[in-house]
Amino acid sequence: MTRLQLTHIQIDNYGPWTVEPEPRREMDLQTLQSRLFADLAQFVGSRDGYVFFTRFDNMVAVTNGLGREEHELLQESVGNRYPITISLGTAVDPVPIEALEGATEQVQAAGSAQDKSRREVLAGEYRRPAEDDVRIAHFDVNDATGKYTDRLNEFDSFIRIEQSYASLMQYMREEHGALSFFVGGDNIIAVVPEMTEDEYLGAIDHVSEDVGIELKVGVGRGPTPADAGIDAKHALEDCRYDGTRVEFADH
Amino acid sequence: MTRLQLTHIQIDNYGPWTVEPEPRREMDLQTLQSRLFADLAQFVGSRDGYVFFTRFDNMVAVTNGLGREEHELLQESVGNRYPITISLGTAVDPVPIEALEGATEQVQAAGSAQDKSRREVLAGEYRRPAEDDVRIAHFDVNDATGKYTDRLNEFDSFIRIEQSYASLMQYMREEHGALSFFVGGDNIIAVVPEMTEDEYLGAIDHVSEDVGIELKVGVGRGPTPADAGIDAKHALEDCRYDGTRVEFADH
Amino acid sequence: MTRLQLTHIQIDNYGPWTVEPEPRREMDLQTLQSRLFADLAQFVGSRDGYVFFTRFDNMVAVTNGLGREEHELLQESVGNRYPITISLGTAVDPVPIEALEGATEQVQAAGSAQDKSRREVLAGEYRRPAEDDVRIAHFDVNDATGKYTDRLNEFDSFIRIEQSYASLMQYMREEHGALSFFVGGDNIIAVVPEMTEDEYLGAIDHVSEDVGIELKVGVGRGPTPADAGIDAKHALEDCRYDGTRVEFADH
Amino acid sequence: MTRLQLTHIQIDNYGPWTVEPEPRREMDLQTLQSRLFADLAQFVGSRDGYVFFTRFDNMVAVTNGLGREEHELLQESVGNRYPITISLGTAVDPVPIEALEGATEQVQAAGSAQDKSRREVLAGEYRRPAEDDVRIAHFDVNDATGKYTDRLNEFDSFIRIEQSYASLMQYMREEHGALSFFVGGDNIIAVVPEMTEDEYLGAIDHVSEDVGIELKVGVGRGPTPADAGIDAKHALEDCRYDGTRVEFADH
Repeated sequence: MTRLQLTHIQIDNYGPWTVEPEPRREMDLQTLQSRLFADLAQFVGSRDGYVFFTRFDNMVAVTNGLGREEHELLQESVGNRYPITISLGTAVDPVPIEALEGATEQVQAAGSAQDKSRREVLAGEYRRPAEDDVRIAHFDVNDATGKYTDRLNEFDSFIRIEQSYASLMQYMREEHGALSFFVGGDNIIAVVPEMTEDEYLGAIDHVSEDVGIELKVGVGRGPTPADAGIDAKHALEDCRYDGTRVEFADH
Repeated sequence: MTRLQLTHIQIDNYGPWTVEPEPRREMDLQTLQSRLFADLAQFVGSRDGYVFFTRFDNMVAVTNGLGREEHELLQESVGNRYPITISLGTAVDPVPIEALEGATEQVQAAGSAQDKSRREVLAGEYRRPAEDDVRIAHFDVNDATGKYTDRLNEFDSFIRIEQSYASLMQYMREEHGALSFFVGGDNIIAVVPEMTEDEYLGAIDHVSEDVGIELKVGVGRGPTPADAGIDAKHALEDCRYDGTRVEFADH
Repeated sequence: MTRLQLTHIQIDNYGPWTVEPEPRREMDLQTLQSRLFADLAQFVGSRDGYVFFTRFDNMVAVTNGLGREEHELLQESVGNRYPITISLGTAVDPVPIEALEGATEQVQAAGSAQDKSRREVLAGEYRRPAEDDVRIAHFDVNDATGKYTDRLNEFDSFIRIEQSYASLMQYMREEHGALSFFVGGDNIIAVVPEMTEDEYLGAIDHVSEDVGIELKVGVGRGPTPADAGIDAKHALEDCRYDGTRVEFADH
Repeated sequence: MTRLQLTHIQIDNYGPWTVEPEPRREMDLQTLQSRLFADLAQFVGSRDGYVFFTRFDNMVAVTNGLGREEHELLQESVGNRYPITISLGTAVDPVPIEALEGATEQVQAAGSAQDKSRREVLAGEYRRPAEDDVRIAHFDVNDATGKYTDRLNEFDSFIRIEQSYASLMQYMREEHGALSFFVGGDNIIAVVPEMTEDEYLGAIDHVSEDVGIELKVGVGRGPTPADAGIDAKHALEDCRYDGTRVEFADH
């Protein structure tokens, strides 16, 4: 059984900050957001967690392996180096969406995202890493380069990828409580509960029928997102070589 | 009449690089991609252009105000500091999607995105900045914090924003040849041709009917994306204060 | 007794890379170097170690608390995100300069800094953190702002600071085998063996007589550089409030 | 005749910020400082200027080619993305130290570096770039890898480089009003007035006699630091191939 530890990262009172005293240069905001995400990716990632940019002002991390101390240090370090601060709510559950629900509640319970006096919430529960707690599914689009990137203008290629993502993310969330994130290129990484091969085929078929894009998926598991994720990548390589649609990492 | 200069930025042979000799750590790839984007945002943004992360391995920039020399310098600087290189195709057109079509063609004409021998394409046409060449429309979601962020778990909030984006991006592209980009939070920035208030209301109504999300929009114009974009932000602030759905910046 | 674990970080074959095929833009090199240092500071620092930029192409870290696994991960992550790679030699000794001697030997034994085929050396010994292994001395200049920064041009201020640093670094190395690093502003951080108050006064007097600059110092100890270093900072604050020249952190 | 435009960059009220409400983690400060420097290097460097880290909280830039507008934008962008702000004083003079003197005075005239109410000073004069305004001398140590890096421990290598730098920086400042900056490795870059070959030999001889380190130097000139600097690098390569001690770039 999976035991996902999810962390909801929320920039405190960010919306108002971006327009006070007057709207800030958009490219400075883009720089700030993407560098903050990069720093989180290094901090969390080098401890074998995964973080996804989601909306940038709100991000989702899978933090199996990081305890309260690491969360506190991350929060302090961001506060030392950025003009903004972050709140961190964490929860654990076998189902990804339930874990995130718990994580978000920790942050919401302390006040609104635009509450001026709510800063640096640090709340929730943490779990010691254990064998097979995490499952990661890594999807990509079949021959995206040949079908789209080398043929269409970049926006029309992007629309195809975006459509497949929108379709998959909703299906996976509704059917399985899984959280799927676009991670660039033609790649979607999903934090998933235990799912069968047929269930993955069901997801791929859904996207194919819904928007006409063909996906394949490699699935890995392990004590941390990095372990599960690298297994998923290898399994996806197996799909590529064997022409299959779903591969589970040997274990 | 708008005269958009669009640049298609493509990381050379990126897909294969991410898995050779074996798959690289995902959080390192995320760091690399988001920092590259941040650097582009600073370079292009400090010259009054806009760049959007799109798929990260392929990005779209509005570069009115940047000539061939600046593009060449950007390309050289990235090559000096990253383990990857970038190709840059540029074109000019009154309609955003047509400009991008031309930009992408410049890159595609030199070879595939996964061609090992195609590196650092630098091709296209550049235009001296001129009054009113650029129009930017800045959309956001009405009361996203109150309706979603403070109430739903982060993924379900994100699904709402993502749905509104997916709906808007397709409508704007098909109806107006406009390019809409999610830029974080509940914000979508579109590079647009000349459009009337009714046409903006049509877009907002479409999204409302399609996915039940209510948007508003501020529109600005100017010789560069930064000029048009900051005007659009001020116009969006006017929407907020006045409770209106579409505002054009005074000019 | 101190037990310092020092790591010598060397960019592989960096000199030749900076001029091949022809000299690269200096500001790109400066960016690359300082960002690499910043990344090391985050990686090592968030694990309670300290890293110093030294010559930038060769850096020195105090890594008590980081094992071989962390060193390997750091090396892999840098290789994934930069156009260069790094070698890491590590050694442990009660005397800082002896530990560094051992660390450097690990790297040198594998080949020259400009050997094209020597890449990503990872060698040495690592120690589990233990109580009081590390001592850090944090020096600064008395009233540097009032005497120099607010009065002299920046270069002449810098010369004063630089002189005090050159004098202190040599004295501390020769007399005590300590390693002193300029860390910006008017701050010098030294990795030290056990030293008495008189020995610190001797160092401060030496600099005063040698170059006429008055220093003060706070000294801390702990299992890691971060522990010892934050104690040293508090002790230095005590100097400031009490007008003393040497303070040891209570422990 | 050279006409150097120097900018003094000072972080506002930085010292107090680093210890309030209590001392911040040193590695976070190191990260902040080196990333700020990297950002300045990109902004200034991509406009063909040079910036040197000096003391990190105070930096020196050669900004021929950057006007008031660029300085203002840089200041705004830093303010948007960092927890600190910067002041910028600029002046022009044939002699580097005189230009810097003027630049620093602009900042000092507005208040102390530790004045809480003095923020974002932007003052001084700017000059349109003109042919041959800038001269850059690029020094390095003869066979530093063979003599030091591959033989000594890293700190003892660093001491040699540091000694040569301390000796050269003082000589060049006193004899020629030139500003010399250590830029990593065994490299020192000096912003210089017009100097003859004999004067350069005098500097090199001084360092050799003073500390026993052998330097060589390439000298370039041009309308901007980047132009002069790249010429200087090529001239230094000529020294390497020809075994000479001073080379001027052909022009």
